[in-house]
Amino acid sequence: MARQFQDLGFGTKAAEAQARLLNRDGSFNIRRKGLAFFESFSGYHYLISISWWQFCVWILGTYVAMNALFGGVYYLIGTNSLAGIDGQTPFEQYIECFFFSTQTFTTVGFGRVAPVGNLANTVSALESMTGLLSFALATGLLYGRFSRPVARIIFSRHAVVAPYNGGDGNAKTGFMFRIANQRSNQLIEIEATLTLVWLEDVGGGRRTRQFHELELERKSLKFFHLSWTVVHPIDSTSPLFGVTKEQLDASEAEFLIILKAFDDTFSQTVYSRTSYKAHEVVFDHKFKGIIRTGKDGVTEIELDKIHDHERVS
Amino acid sequence: MARQFQDLGFGTKAAEAQARLLNRDGSFNIRRKGLAFFESFSGYHYLISISWWQFCVWILGTYVAMNALFGGVYYLIGTNSLAGIDGQTPFEQYIECFFFSTQTFTTVGFGRVAPVGNLANTVSALESMTGLLSFALATGLLYGRFSRPVARIIFSRHAVVAPYNGGDGNAKTGFMFRIANQRSNQLIEIEATLTLVWLEDVGGGRRTRQFHELELERKSLKFFHLSWTVVHPIDSTSPLFGVTKEQLDASEAEFLIILKAFDDTFSQTVYSRTSYKAHEVVFDHKFKGIIRTGKDGVTEIELDKIHDHERVS
Amino acid sequence: MARQFQDLGFGTKAAEAQARLLNRDGSFNIRRKGLAFFESFSGYHYLISISWWQFCVWILGTYVAMNALFGGVYYLIGTNSLAGIDGQTPFEQYIECFFFSTQTFTTVGFGRVAPVGNLANTVSALESMTGLLSFALATGLLYGRFSRPVARIIFSRHAVVAPYNGGDGNAKTGFMFRIANQRSNQLIEIEATLTLVWLEDVGGGRRTRQFHELELERKSLKFFHLSWTVVHPIDSTSPLFGVTKEQLDASEAEFLIILKAFDDTFSQTVYSRTSYKAHEVVFDHKFKGIIRTGKDGVTEIELDKIHDHERVS
Amino acid sequence: MARQFQDLGFGTKAAEAQARLLNRDGSFNIRRKGLAFFESFSGYHYLISISWWQFCVWILGTYVAMNALFGGVYYLIGTNSLAGIDGQTPFEQYIECFFFSTQTFTTVGFGRVAPVGNLANTVSALESMTGLLSFALATGLLYGRFSRPVARIIFSRHAVVAPYNGGDGNAKTGFMFRIANQRSNQLIEIEATLTLVWLEDVGGGRRTRQFHELELERKSLKFFHLSWTVVHPIDSTSPLFGVTKEQLDASEAEFLIILKAFDDTFSQTVYSRTSYKAHEVVFDHKFKGIIRTGKDGVTEIELDKIHDHERVS
Repeated sequence: MARQFQDLGFGTKAAEAQARLLNRDGSFNIRRKGLAFFESFSGYHYLISISWWQFCVWILGTYVAMNALFGGVYYLIGTNSLAGIDGQTPFEQYIECFFFSTQTFTTVGFGRVAPVGNLANTVSALESMTGLLSFALATGLLYGRFSRPVARIIFSRHAVVAPYNGGDGNAKTGFMFRIANQRSNQLIEIEATLTLVWLEDVGGGRRTRQFHELELERKSLKFFHLSWTVVHPIDSTSPLFGVTKEQLDASEAEFLIILKAFDDTFSQTVYSRTSYKAHEVVFDHKFKGIIRTGKDGVTEIELDKIHDHERVS
Repeated sequence: MARQFQDLGFGTKAAEAQARLLNRDGSFNIRRKGLAFFESFSGYHYLISISWWQFCVWILGTYVAMNALFGGVYYLIGTNSLAGIDGQTPFEQYIECFFFSTQTFTTVGFGRVAPVGNLANTVSALESMTGLLSFALATGLLYGRFSRPVARIIFSRHAVVAPYNGGDGNAKTGFMFRIANQRSNQLIEIEATLTLVWLEDVGGGRRTRQFHELELERKSLKFFHLSWTVVHPIDSTSPLFGVTKEQLDASEAEFLIILKAFDDTFSQTVYSRTSYKAHEVVFDHKFKGIIRTGKDGVTEIELDKIHDHERVS
Repeated sequence: MARQFQDLGFGTKAAEAQARLLNRDGSFNIRRKGLAFFESFSGYHYLISISWWQFCVWILGTYVAMNALFGGVYYLIGTNSLAGIDGQTPFEQYIECFFFSTQTFTTVGFGRVAPVGNLANTVSALESMTGLLSFALATGLLYGRFSRPVARIIFSRHAVVAPYNGGDGNAKTGFMFRIANQRSNQLIEIEATLTLVWLEDVGGGRRTRQFHELELERKSLKFFHLSWTVVHPIDSTSPLFGVTKEQLDASEAEFLIILKAFDDTFSQTVYSRTSYKAHEVVFDHKFKGIIRTGKDGVTEIELDKIHDHERVS
Repeated sequence: MARQFQDLGFGTKAAEAQARLLNRDGSFNIRRKGLAFFESFSGYHYLISISWWQFCVWILGTYVAMNALFGGVYYLIGTNSLAGIDGQTPFEQYIECFFFSTQTFTTVGFGRVAPVGNLANTVSALESMTGLLSFALATGLLYGRFSRPVARIIFSRHAVVAPYNGGDGNAKTGFMFRIANQRSNQLIEIEATLTLVWLEDVGGGRRTRQFHELELERKSLKFFHLSWTVVHPIDSTSPLFGVTKEQLDASEAEFLIILKAFDDTFSQTVYSRTSYKAHEVVFDHKFKGIIRTGKDGVTEIELDKIHDHERVS
């Protein structure tokens, strides 16, 4: 499957861009133009993605706006149509209409103020219906946000290039980064792909961006309950073979990382992406160990040290 | 996988139809007969698929109908059973019953009018329960419509047949169409299949419809954040090899397109379909470039120009 | 994938059963024993699977029972604690308590009757919370039932054994059944598997049940918008080769059918199962055509004739 | 696929742990350190996973706390702002404020007590909104818990090592455990993987933990409606070949079991895990039969006897 979807979809034109292709938070560094706002806008997508702070402002703002509107309608119908209104000035009366509206919109309906006559009753019947439907959207979104499966992967701040033990006793050199699951929910069948994009001489003094999928020592894990150091072995088949830190910087290299996993709690497939630019790669450093066996024989992982690396000689 | 499901399910009889097989909006051009309305009707499917305008009419209509009904029941029970009714004429009294019903159905329950006696109380207890359940359906549908994953793919208005650079330096000719994601949500692991259906001579002067799955330069992309020009190379193995515009028209050719992708926001698989008839294929034209690098080095895509193509000599 | 999951899980013991293995509605003909009711009971599964009629009885019954209970509690607390009660006899007072309970449980809260004092207020606070949570479950189930993806496949009443045109011009004989989608929603990537289970002589006068997966002319369709006649070619490699109607009956043959598809509206994978016993297989009959081209060139399918078959000579 | 995700993700360090790797309930025996509580905490995951008893305490506690808070605010605003309050002492008045708050929070709104004036009305408008949103979360979680797909697999208490009939007439020895579906919902396409982890001599007197995926007679079943005895044949290619009970104990062996299935009712993929330590493996015992044919020819399974095994000579 991984092989099937090799093409990352950047095309040849995007390959000419000088800017980072993938931001550290996994979003694509692309500008979309030419569509009117509403053509490309997905209300659900927007409201599910914004911050909690923005979401609360939206909810509260809509609530106030709806009641200001319906309150105005009741005021225009006339305060005779609302039994229980006892404000003297127009402003006081509008405020009472506003509060009556909130009681109708939320269906709390205390009844101290209540509609009299056909017009006020009709508006009030419509408002309570609107209120129920509006709160259904709001609460659906609230719960959708709360229960949405999002993989919170911690990526090590830097990638490193260092020797490692290849398993067969021979020392190899590898490009490595380290990841861990920030949340305590279980991620299953996690797969990683690593793609290098850099400038290459294509003859005639021209340099264009080229993509290389880099082989990994291990492409997938059945469970992801500890940290995982993803390793690309820099052997003679690797485009990184013999490349120095200076050459990497000069080539404007970027390492694109894509993770795919199954979230056990949500029963859904989740994705996570990030990239390392050349200046975020540290040569001749290796990651410090963060997994050890506690006194009681239980395996421990120190997640706060996931970024730590040290010089190797 | 793509290979496994090659059969598009049209069968031999459907192959005799002269009409378009797939409409431009992706629905099948088929008439289903012989089932009673309720056997093939799926209420959920209907209410989730109709336009927003129709949906609002349904919701409002049901709301009015339910309250007209329950209002009638209260009226028949007698207005003595509703404390607070002060209408004089039967019509006024019915209207008050109607509005009391709306207050019960939405559970706003102001209480200015309130049920007295067993009969009115029983009906009111049933109505508030019915109201809660009805609004649950309505709001579930509302949220379902709002949060439903739908791939909004823009397909180029025409497909083109034009030379292109085959990557190995040799010019080839290809059948091409261009697609882009209209929404700003992320589509992942997108796959395309392209099937040609046209009339072929099968000997003895008879012509029948034949299906050909057309090979693609690239069947899938890992990410679909830019536009994608899907290309079928017209080489000697292609049924389109040497076919002229006139022959294509005469064969009543139709190109069926199926897209499958994973929607990152909704964590679900989505499908999109369309077709191009022979008269929607333009020969010796190629698509104009719509991806370029902005001044700040960021990749830009002009989605309003996705349909643009130009003559090649 | 189909190959991977070949084992239907009946085991050798189940193979000794004389009864049908799979009922026509797709459920397994198996009796589960030895677990207490609550160990194997899944409330959600039960309430989502029962008929609409049973579901309504459950909802209404629970609603009445809850209010009878809470009404009783209010009655025990004393009718002094409920302002607005004016019943004279204990029974009248209990009924008023009951109706007050319904107004609290549904949060309609007219207020003509209202709690006074700590005890009645506490119970009422708990009841309105309980009511909201109970209705959440009820409405969740209601919507879950309404929006649940269920493949409604029409299976032809009989399977037939008849000659057919094998595509290469040679007449073959096949075991066939016909299916169609009853609903108007779209099923995609449909796969069928057909397994024969019958008694075979295993030497020494003993006969045991044996399973054979039968090859299909076509195992899957990309789209399932018309009817599909699933065909097992009875050639020399088929266990049915040369088998007569009488032999089939004597062997207590059962044909197990499993369908898997992706529902486009619900974005979910759905399954359907059924079986044909030997007496539901008709020899030397073929299905009548139900797909034709209408006057306007559009393909038509007559779903009411899906069961129709006719003798072939 | 099974092959692709062979690496269980324990790494080399975890292999040094002396404690059990997987608990019997399927959770990983791992201690996560170094993250602040809120970084790794997922509210949804927590509230969906805790016991029903804990969940009820949370819901009720939050309900009381919210109303204690809002009740306090109304009390501070002053009881003049609530029409209908008739408590004399401050405590009585606070209690009335508290109960008014519950009527607002649940939107029952009897109206016997009702807000008067801008401040109380504003707080009440906010509270009814907060109440609706809070109950939306609570009821979402309630329904989420109720409808969450969880595979309830019964694993036999012990695994056994015993001879069995290999199908080809030759007696073989196998490592076996038995599973059944506790619930009556249907599990489809169930797959099992079995991994042995034990201490091995690696030369120089050192012993380290090694992982071995053990071959299974049958890796998957299409349906899982009866019990399934999963069998690893101990032939010459098995690491268990010739291993005695004493050697198994001395090696601190642990058998890790992973099940994956598709739940037909919930249309979702579910996982289940467990492990057997060496002391939970019984040699020279076999499982007693629990499937038989009833008098009416229907297959019966006795789920209470799933753990039963007996000595074989």
